Amino acid sequence: MDEEKNVEKLKELLSLRDFMTFRTEILEENEVDIAEFIEGLTPEERLLVMRLLPKDLAVEVFSELPSEVQEEFMTKISKEEIDHLVREMFVDDLVDLLEELPATLVAEILERTPTEQRATINRFLQYREDTAGSIMTAEYTSLKKHLTVKEAITYLRKNGQNSETLYSCYVVSESRVLQGVITLRTLLLSKDEEKVEDLMDEHVHNVHTDQDVEDVADLFSKYDFMTLPVVDKEDRLVGIITVDDIMDVILEEDTEDFEKMAGTVPSDKPYLKTPVWELARNRMGWLVFLMLSGIITGAILTTFEEAFLVIPVLITFIPMLTDTGGNSGSQSSTLIIRGIVLNEIEMKDVLKVFFKEFQVSIMTGAFLSVLTFIRLMLMYPDRPLVVIVVSLSILLTVIMAKLLGALLPFFAKVIKADPAIMAAPLITTIVDATSLLTYFFLAQLILKI
Amino acid sequence: MDEEKNVEKLKELLSLRDFMTFRTEILEENEVDIAEFIEGLTPEERLLVMRLLPKDLAVEVFSELPSEVQEEFMTKISKEEIDHLVREMFVDDLVDLLEELPATLVAEILERTPTEQRATINRFLQYREDTAGSIMTAEYTSLKKHLTVKEAITYLRKNGQNSETLYSCYVVSESRVLQGVITLRTLLLSKDEEKVEDLMDEHVHNVHTDQDVEDVADLFSKYDFMTLPVVDKEDRLVGIITVDDIMDVILEEDTEDFEKMAGTVPSDKPYLKTPVWELARNRMGWLVFLMLSGIITGAILTTFEEAFLVIPVLITFIPMLTDTGGNSGSQSSTLIIRGIVLNEIEMKDVLKVFFKEFQVSIMTGAFLSVLTFIRLMLMYPDRPLVVIVVSLSILLTVIMAKLLGALLPFFAKVIKADPAIMAAPLITTIVDATSLLTYFFLAQLILKI
Repeated sequence: MDEEKNVEKLKELLSLRDFMTFRTEILEENEVDIAEFIEGLTPEERLLVMRLLPKDLAVEVFSELPSEVQEEFMTKISKEEIDHLVREMFVDDLVDLLEELPATLVAEILERTPTEQRATINRFLQYREDTAGSIMTAEYTSLKKHLTVKEAITYLRKNGQNSETLYSCYVVSESRVLQGVITLRTLLLSKDEEKVEDLMDEHVHNVHTDQDVEDVADLFSKYDFMTLPVVDKEDRLVGIITVDDIMDVILEEDTEDFEKMAGTVPSDKPYLKTPVWELARNRMGWLVFLMLSGIITGAILTTFEEAFLVIPVLITFIPMLTDTGGNSGSQSSTLIIRGIVLNEIEMKDVLKVFFKEFQVSIMTGAFLSVLTFIRLMLMYPDRPLVVIVVSLSILLTVIMAKLLGALLPFFAKVIKADPAIMAAPLITTIVDATSLLTYFFLAQLILKI
Repeated sequence: MDEEKNVEKLKELLSLRDFMTFRTEILEENEVDIAEFIEGLTPEERLLVMRLLPKDLAVEVFSELPSEVQEEFMTKISKEEIDHLVREMFVDDLVDLLEELPATLVAEILERTPTEQRATINRFLQYREDTAGSIMTAEYTSLKKHLTVKEAITYLRKNGQNSETLYSCYVVSESRVLQGVITLRTLLLSKDEEKVEDLMDEHVHNVHTDQDVEDVADLFSKYDFMTLPVVDKEDRLVGIITVDDIMDVILEEDTEDFEKMAGTVPSDKPYLKTPVWELARNRMGWLVFLMLSGIITGAILTTFEEAFLVIPVLITFIPMLTDTGGNSGSQSSTLIIRGIVLNEIEMKDVLKVFFKEFQVSIMTGAFLSVLTFIRLMLMYPDRPLVVIVVSLSILLTVIMAKLLGALLPFFAKVIKADPAIMAAPLITTIVDATSLLTYFFLAQLILKI
């Protein structure tokens, strides 16, 4: 790719005010790249470039801009330009925009919108965030089942202009109840005189407007759909969701999981666009909670203070022990949490997982334990009992850590919490306490202190 | 969904040997669900059910089965049935199958495959794993640019039967060099007599056969493509990649990142299908490395053993301090790693990130430090100097941890390592050592021990 070079060239043309060449050059680019280019300009240049674009392309580019740039724009352009934008944008993009704009501007825009479009927009604005209704598009094509293939194709060619996709055509009754689906592919590959009702698939997967987008994403990745129809409570078709909208949802969900699993409140903004105070606030909760749980480990250590005074070397193994426990536990919990998110692991698998992690923990624990034993016997040949205490503690800590790491995500599901909270930070803290207790219990037992 | 109920019903019909009703019922299901149902049966039942399905559906269901079930099948069915499968499967699915089968069976299958198909299969088998070539499909439709819209549509309707998708049609020259793309949508919405060459988009994004699938996935999510053409070194079109193949790649890449960030070697099998010894082996490396790095923290603690003997209470704050550091650091590193993976953060942003994390670390560090100060002053009112040492250590540890967490992923990129290795396990270990050193340095300075 020579993106960078193109950007430099375009910027130069702009500064030379050679708008003719600039326009020819920028028209070679994709709308996503143009939006990215515009984002890097000053507000004045942005306005200039947008006005240089053909009107239809300008609308597409506008839809790709980040909301703060869109907002800045809306306050600067003329009423006629706003009207054109509103008329031409896909409803789902427009609704995303309106949700970000100040209320007064939204009211003003809605006032000048044709009644029918305003009704659609208002309906969309009411769907809760992260539901199927909030990401669906209203621009789809539906067919009636009595049509022949030839009639259907002619209908699509005449009326498809405003559809976001033509490739899955939904068949609806007079009252718009969803009856089936027929792909454009099937239509094209069938004979002109065949009937839609004989070719359509009546077993059409659909989702409800209030269904969680995560469920919708699961359906897409399980069945490799290209589109899914969205229906209301009366099973009437109200919109469709396309796979490209869902790809963004999947990436966002995964990003949220990464954030949660690192003990951070998920943010819906990219890192570089999140204000500092918001980043700090998102991280504070867990840090405070986990730091205060240090009271417990502190208390355990205080109880055994005497043991340290008798055999101070015991102290030096504490970080190794708690870290090994934390790492072992978070390896297990991360794999189990991810399995649950991907629906590869279900509640009924809990015993299978327990047994599997038990075996894995014995293998890894025994190996680490033997390794520790050999290393410490070389370092402290005169203190075999201490070496035995530490090696045995490693074994028991790894076993406990892995079993806790495996079971706690299931426990989270049972109490209807998000399994992702059982990731490294919390597991580490819980394992800290248990591994210290094990360590001192063994020390008292074997070293008689 | 009443999946579960359907499965029970189908199993009952099967055990009653009521094959007529069974066949009618199972034909209501989607091929993904049928494959899932078959997976849950005994090997004998599987063979029986597959033979009850119409031949074309059987091929689709077969493509959805996990490779071990496919393999078992191939060894049981007749030569004629194998031939039918091989003939009807899409080349990319077939190649995935062949890669899993024992070499003798592959040779036998290839021997009985028609020469032309064998050439395609062999070519596909040569693409390295995780390259565009290895996931592309050979079943696409290409057009010539001199065609009219009407001719193009007629051509598609006649020849599209074997295409995996008809919705993006690539325009190629006589020597198959890629010249442009035209969507079926554009074709349908244009007038019969218009020419493909006037309607097609000549600026067509493409990928090379040896390009990494991660790059391909990035293009799909950035531009919301439905398909991308794959070209060879001479820019000749050799295949296409569809968005549904890429969704699987994205989920797999994210799963690998979760695994790497938990200090585990990524596995390409789902958790429940990974053998115990493989799970253990995947986790062992990091655990050993991190445990042995405990030698460093051990050495630091040994150096300061005397300090503990003078003021034993210092020991009790060690886990709180190292855990707070580890958590602070991994919050930062996780966010930065994810940002780098999603291309939201680039190398040039390193100073921006550094400054941002510095501010965040001052805010969170100061808050935690004050909280610690208040809590410890209540618990140890007679030891203000110890309280000051601990509170200051918290502040400095959080600052250092967050800066390390922010910078090390960039450092990994510089040395061409995967930034994901700079996740919680490694950060925690590095921060452990630095926080202990800070703690004892402050203790010596303030408590004069």
